[in-house]
Amino acid sequence: MSAPPITLLTDFGLRDGYVGAMKGVLLTRSPGVQLVDLSHEIPPGAIDAGAYVLAQAALGFPEGTVHLAVVDPGVGSSRRGVVVEMDRHRYVAPDNGLLTLCLERARRVRVHSIENQRLWADEPSAVFHGRDIFAPVAAHLACGGPPDAVGPEVDAGSLVLRLWPKPERRGETLLGAVVYVDRFGNLVTNLRVEAGSFRGSVEVAGERIPVGRTYGDVPEGALVVAIGSSGWLEVARNGGSAAERLGARVGDPVAWHGEAP
Amino acid sequence: MSAPPITLLTDFGLRDGYVGAMKGVLLTRSPGVQLVDLSHEIPPGAIDAGAYVLAQAALGFPEGTVHLAVVDPGVGSSRRGVVVEMDRHRYVAPDNGLLTLCLERARRVRVHSIENQRLWADEPSAVFHGRDIFAPVAAHLACGGPPDAVGPEVDAGSLVLRLWPKPERRGETLLGAVVYVDRFGNLVTNLRVEAGSFRGSVEVAGERIPVGRTYGDVPEGALVVAIGSSGWLEVARNGGSAAERLGARVGDPVAWHGEAP
Amino acid sequence: MSAPPITLLTDFGLRDGYVGAMKGVLLTRSPGVQLVDLSHEIPPGAIDAGAYVLAQAALGFPEGTVHLAVVDPGVGSSRRGVVVEMDRHRYVAPDNGLLTLCLERARRVRVHSIENQRLWADEPSAVFHGRDIFAPVAAHLACGGPPDAVGPEVDAGSLVLRLWPKPERRGETLLGAVVYVDRFGNLVTNLRVEAGSFRGSVEVAGERIPVGRTYGDVPEGALVVAIGSSGWLEVARNGGSAAERLGARVGDPVAWHGEAP
Repeated sequence: MSAPPITLLTDFGLRDGYVGAMKGVLLTRSPGVQLVDLSHEIPPGAIDAGAYVLAQAALGFPEGTVHLAVVDPGVGSSRRGVVVEMDRHRYVAPDNGLLTLCLERARRVRVHSIENQRLWADEPSAVFHGRDIFAPVAAHLACGGPPDAVGPEVDAGSLVLRLWPKPERRGETLLGAVVYVDRFGNLVTNLRVEAGSFRGSVEVAGERIPVGRTYGDVPEGALVVAIGSSGWLEVARNGGSAAERLGARVGDPVAWHGEAP
Repeated sequence: MSAPPITLLTDFGLRDGYVGAMKGVLLTRSPGVQLVDLSHEIPPGAIDAGAYVLAQAALGFPEGTVHLAVVDPGVGSSRRGVVVEMDRHRYVAPDNGLLTLCLERARRVRVHSIENQRLWADEPSAVFHGRDIFAPVAAHLACGGPPDAVGPEVDAGSLVLRLWPKPERRGETLLGAVVYVDRFGNLVTNLRVEAGSFRGSVEVAGERIPVGRTYGDVPEGALVVAIGSSGWLEVARNGGSAAERLGARVGDPVAWHGEAP
Repeated sequence: MSAPPITLLTDFGLRDGYVGAMKGVLLTRSPGVQLVDLSHEIPPGAIDAGAYVLAQAALGFPEGTVHLAVVDPGVGSSRRGVVVEMDRHRYVAPDNGLLTLCLERARRVRVHSIENQRLWADEPSAVFHGRDIFAPVAAHLACGGPPDAVGPEVDAGSLVLRLWPKPERRGETLLGAVVYVDRFGNLVTNLRVEAGSFRGSVEVAGERIPVGRTYGDVPEGALVVAIGSSGWLEVARNGGSAAERLGARVGDPVAWHGEAP
């Protein structure tokens, strides 16, 4: 069996070499470990976007994978760093809500607070815990080091959660919001509908958009609502950007009407 | 000998985590396999650009490499998925022309239609075949699984090809078009000229540009035509963007005049 | 012990497949070698930015790492290619100043000029030495090949250096410049101050900015000067871009006043 990989998700971008600096630490402390980028293009400080992308990308990785996630606008402040074991994976992250969506789906959760400075770089930079604290901890775990060694176990209920808007049901209607816009201009919503009862239409930005199975179920340029790849309803445009066409963005209200209009 | 790598080329971008989701599947089904990104910044749905980048990047990989290429505006529609064996490589892709330029150079081609659902994810998303169908098939091949297992062999002549414009000869002149513009603003054309007879000039966007061996053969800011890294004539600007300077773009006509003006 | 990795730093971008083409060569000639991207988003031809990012990202890698760095506006001209051994690492790069900042910190430096064509691709493209000359040389080194085989040893003093502006001391004041702006809009300066005597303020773009330990030491939206992750003073804005707020850019003068204003 091969050793588990370490994935990386940050808002560091790919231009500046911050990601490279973290990888140098990971490979020095965990020689040969497989490194996989989930995303480094989370907008600076955008914890919600990071939480969405992490949940979308991380869950399919093999047992034992270590997910190193650093969207950390509070770096150097008193915010806690944590190791969270969820089902078959380990997450290393600042405790600021970045793990919210992964936590929602987890069955067993075990949390350790990152406090054992002997695992860290000798003089950690106050502005780059990703390199000097989180990466050494991730390498420790990837090498088979026990979570207990990173610091004391703490209550999972103490983790910071972000308020992901809860959908609301009113009769035949489900009310929610756009929670993410992807590079294709697809509007990801926080609405989930069973495939079996998925019909009707969605109202967003003043327009009523029909339900379909895939983008190509409507003519080129037309809008469609489909069950997205992570199970949330998603407004898309065949061959174009729904976000641009509708002038819609994160936070906009969305309503699913289960009956035809 | 080490196991062959899997390369990835998509139009998914690097921001959203779609690529990470594919990699999770690949590593779960083919533990430890080496993953190499060719490009994920193909413009959304741009099959022609994807075909060019794939041909430019894929051919130098070691024997046995599996190339997973997903630029797939028709995802979820009736377009076919295929495994194409060409010379020493295997390609997994939608059958939409993405492989056109690789096919042009291939000697032996063997094609299987992707139909065996037992290799796929349990309930494939209608909008993310990259993760649920193509990635599992690529992992199957990378693990040494036979192409026959993915579905029936089909005629290579049945593959969808994109109409890459054919250059035309008129006396001393070769007529073609700009087929790609790279990040440096270099204009890649569909014209090929033997290094031995490469002289004269190229006409594009109303200007006549002299032939050179490399970008630095002309003064800073000047335009030059060189044989590009994949063998096609390429209009470049020393220290700048030829595309910006000329206002040129994909599809613009280009003429090579083998004799001096 | 696992084999050392090869890192890659270029200005090729991630869209076009040039990086993929280099990786194909590396994996063909050095099967299974671990490849790590430092950055491919160095602005086209920006040697200074490349030098900064390289120094920031490369130094923490394990012993034996081969750093393949190609920001090469003079490709195909008479500029030299070099292999530079510094302390525990090997660098393969054009001799154009890209290694300046790494050289500044190195103790032992040994340089070989890249001249042995038998290691290169058969007919190297005049416009893509990254793929046809530098990548084969990096693969040679990663496979344990001796630096002597790439060409004659030359004097380290002959290497091209970029004029990184030297800071100047005037009484209680240290004068310098902005040398890099990162994706967060942080202004990296060429000023270094011992953590122990780090107090006072920095003047840049007509504003006086107080010293802090980390970004969060000032209110949301306020500016702060901290010791950056590579040891240089850095002007940042809590939750925003200092560069945008100040309209500052590379080359702007910066003054550190060690005494309170």
